[in-house]
Amino acid sequence: MNAQTPSIPTAADVDAAAERLKGVAVRTPLVFSPILSELTGGRIFIKPETLQRTGSFKFRGAYNRMVQIAPEQRAAGVVACSSGNHAQGVAAAAKLLGMPAIIVMPNDAPALKRARTIALGAEVVGYDRVTEDRDAIAAAIAARNGAILVPPYDDPHVIAGQGTVGREIVEDLVALGLDLDVVSANASGGGLMAGISLAVKARFPNAQPIVAEPADFDDHARSFVSGVRERNAAPSGSFCDALLAPTPGAITFEVNRLLTGGAVSASDAEVAAAVAFAFLELKLVVEPGGAVALAALLQGRIAAKDKTVVIVLSGGNVEPETYLACLKTL
Amino acid sequence: MNAQTPSIPTAADVDAAAERLKGVAVRTPLVFSPILSELTGGRIFIKPETLQRTGSFKFRGAYNRMVQIAPEQRAAGVVACSSGNHAQGVAAAAKLLGMPAIIVMPNDAPALKRARTIALGAEVVGYDRVTEDRDAIAAAIAARNGAILVPPYDDPHVIAGQGTVGREIVEDLVALGLDLDVVSANASGGGLMAGISLAVKARFPNAQPIVAEPADFDDHARSFVSGVRERNAAPSGSFCDALLAPTPGAITFEVNRLLTGGAVSASDAEVAAAVAFAFLELKLVVEPGGAVALAALLQGRIAAKDKTVVIVLSGGNVEPETYLACLKTL
Repeated sequence: MNAQTPSIPTAADVDAAAERLKGVAVRTPLVFSPILSELTGGRIFIKPETLQRTGSFKFRGAYNRMVQIAPEQRAAGVVACSSGNHAQGVAAAAKLLGMPAIIVMPNDAPALKRARTIALGAEVVGYDRVTEDRDAIAAAIAARNGAILVPPYDDPHVIAGQGTVGREIVEDLVALGLDLDVVSANASGGGLMAGISLAVKARFPNAQPIVAEPADFDDHARSFVSGVRERNAAPSGSFCDALLAPTPGAITFEVNRLLTGGAVSASDAEVAAAVAFAFLELKLVVEPGGAVALAALLQGRIAAKDKTVVIVLSGGNVEPETYLACLKTL
Repeated sequence: MNAQTPSIPTAADVDAAAERLKGVAVRTPLVFSPILSELTGGRIFIKPETLQRTGSFKFRGAYNRMVQIAPEQRAAGVVACSSGNHAQGVAAAAKLLGMPAIIVMPNDAPALKRARTIALGAEVVGYDRVTEDRDAIAAAIAARNGAILVPPYDDPHVIAGQGTVGREIVEDLVALGLDLDVVSANASGGGLMAGISLAVKARFPNAQPIVAEPADFDDHARSFVSGVRERNAAPSGSFCDALLAPTPGAITFEVNRLLTGGAVSASDAEVAAAVAFAFLELKLVVEPGGAVALAALLQGRIAAKDKTVVIVLSGGNVEPETYLACLKTL
């Protein structure tokens, strides 16, 4: 597959990504949750991508894209736009591959994510989310340095990399002798959900992937209804700082509109309560943007009774202050 | 094995416990930690028993003991002494087995642990840790009700149940083609470490199990030196509320003095920093008493370079206020 002609990735691309990520990405577990199963009447598993390298699934897609950059091109480095989790994924992949990385990051990105990106060796270039165009800034850097742009979601290699989350879910369920009924993952640009859907539908054609979004940033839900890519009203302001993409990606939407089985959403207060629930009952640190699917399940918006359901916790890079605010809901 | 003649459990008893716990206990994962591996120069895995039913490993031993109570004896229920994690393990097992449970719990036990024990359906009887004798209270309840006492650690069935943690570690390492060099677990009465040692030594005779204790509650370390069971100076006062047993158990010490390869300790401040590290870098919620082995590793007290090391996070039942205090060390 050529970077100049992006196309829809397939389950075979996910298999190839899994080979590239072997021994590099953390093989995250599928953890049965007695308490969620009791609360919902279903058989509920958690896929904690919080335990992934850099604390979110983003490393998978970034590495799968970047390891395919030809050795002679690596010295020029990479550039990426991200408010934090993709930034860390790209930075960690660049460090492993010995490449320089520049991240174009909004000035209102969480300080923790900024600090962790820099700690991984990347250079961070700030911009104003309202008045500046991050894509133009990144394009200028790419042109100046000859650096390769690593998109956060709308790239077949990135989607295939994220799909390894779904491939691992399939492997673990097959080993347990179980079929998958529902898998729900949080969506911003939709890369994680698209990758997961490709992988799980290849093995469980009747499985229902469900997109989870913040209530006021439900571009996927509205796009599924209208059939075209709708935009969110605001460029920022969600409690879920990881889920601020303005609209579904072009490639990801092609996959998601065909393969997903619907969308659910949760309010900021419901997400905060889910973060606190994960602290108290699951003992897993989840960031707001990583807890929307869990919040929707806890609110009864994902039909789980008598079903095998996998909830993906997509990231755990939450600042102590934000975490404290969530725990106050207890 | 007869409850009236306690004896040293074996690896075969751990195998039998694993059969009893199958489909009941959570099969917790073994999670590779890139950051701990980078920091120490070793191959470091985490065994997060925080993800176990009730948030600690204690459910395993309690259930393995209680499921062996004859059906005609179950109506009389069980009684147990515990400051919180064993209490929840016994309560959860009693609920699954349809038995009443009474827990004798110190009045200074964390409110969260008390509340979670009651939420699981157990009755809690309070006592003063300094002026009252919990064993006498429990014995009186057992005599009055005909209830069976479930010891927190000094029981071959309880030890065998905790040993399934070690058995799972062995299974997962074998699947990865790895040998075990070091496994470290937190010790109070020593039941977890004894069970793990039985299981891992059966497969990896050269593996070194290392007991981890709070600095001022290092009864195992002193007992290993003197050869007899030493006592801690204070009955309470550790930041690690889960690790307050006054002395190693009789049975557990017989196992641990033969099989373990030493002891390490960590101060309260080092434990608080480890809890915060687990939040920030591992995305796992750990209570102070569950983080001593991790603290010792982070302090360089467990030789890890070029070794395969497993750190057991034994519990995650930490109150929000205590957690916040730990995060302030960041």
